[in-house]
Amino acid sequence: MYGSSMPRTKGDHESRRRDVSEAVWRVLAAHGFGGLTLRAVAAELGATTGLLTHYFPAKRDLVAYALDLLEQRSAGRPRRAAGAGLAAVRAAMLDILPLTDEATDANRIWVSSWDVALADPALSGDHARRYAQSRDKLCDLVAEAQRLGELPAGDPVRIAAGAQAFTLGLVVQALFAPTAFPPDRQAGLLDDYLDSLAAAPATRDADEVPS
Amino acid sequence: MYGSSMPRTKGDHESRRRDVSEAVWRVLAAHGFGGLTLRAVAAELGATTGLLTHYFPAKRDLVAYALDLLEQRSAGRPRRAAGAGLAAVRAAMLDILPLTDEATDANRIWVSSWDVALADPALSGDHARRYAQSRDKLCDLVAEAQRLGELPAGDPVRIAAGAQAFTLGLVVQALFAPTAFPPDRQAGLLDDYLDSLAAAPATRDADEVPS
Repeated sequence: MYGSSMPRTKGDHESRRRDVSEAVWRVLAAHGFGGLTLRAVAAELGATTGLLTHYFPAKRDLVAYALDLLEQRSAGRPRRAAGAGLAAVRAAMLDILPLTDEATDANRIWVSSWDVALADPALSGDHARRYAQSRDKLCDLVAEAQRLGELPAGDPVRIAAGAQAFTLGLVVQALFAPTAFPPDRQAGLLDDYLDSLAAAPATRDADEVPS
Repeated sequence: MYGSSMPRTKGDHESRRRDVSEAVWRVLAAHGFGGLTLRAVAAELGATTGLLTHYFPAKRDLVAYALDLLEQRSAGRPRRAAGAGLAAVRAAMLDILPLTDEATDANRIWVSSWDVALADPALSGDHARRYAQSRDKLCDLVAEAQRLGELPAGDPVRIAAGAQAFTLGLVVQALFAPTAFPPDRQAGLLDDYLDSLAAAPATRDADEVPS
């Protein structure tokens, strides 16, 4: 696709950068971070690895770029129109699940990123902050559902942490067993979970919890 | 630790194999499958990479060995004495969570293995079968809790799938944020979840589930 001698303009540069991003994404979706190499991206792009070392002098740069790309695409993904209260909690959880091919690719890449991130304290901290922010947003939605009387009283922070755990684990199950967890099954399990939350007794205080 | 000229007996061989397993485990716990290389294992073992190529002619052999080791250690891990019914469901879920250093290492390695497994259909299928078996066991415990009247009626397969999702997602959260999810917090969130299940309406049939 790209010879090393092609003329370079600003438009070319931006278009090439988009193509590089697409190639990195496709490599990640197919092979994960474990298969993310300059050679694999070059093959996907139909370019030389020489061209790519211009963008990514070291493997580390390629990984950092891939993580940024993952974050950008996640932040920019389409979201369901959400009402208020429990409907908004449900929409936020559905927005995460691998219900479409695009969401499946993104989730597969997220799960893959956990290995890279857990091996690096800085990256692990970044991920921890992302998940904490995501819990905070979910917590606001849970608190609103409680105000509307759709969820029982109880610490919304705990409820949000539980809901996030449920969602992430369902993502993992669905990635490994897509035929056992097709979209309607995922949505059904999520609705079981929300029905349970709505019927649950108020969460206990931390000091009442048996260990 | 091992010179290439040391004498080899059967006892030496078995002892060395145990040492190799320990070294592979420590590399995985620290660096994940992404950091699993002959060089890293050799350094951990204080041996030459030459010695290790005797055990692992190719990188693929090292990965396969590591996955077997993970499965063996998981199968052989200590389990809580479980009563019947809901107590047994709780014990089975607690057995999975990263509540100790050993369980944290094992979970970190499991999560790491997801990247490797998702990139390889055969390995992915192995993982899918493992999780399906784990859900089947949980399903039996859920059904028993239902017979004892500790959980409401409803498809135990669905309840087990939800419980497994919750547990796996909690593992991921706790690995990234160990200070936010210390053992008593994990156990507390699990008890919230079980309280919700016990209070939940019977799960709906699949054809009643909105998508």
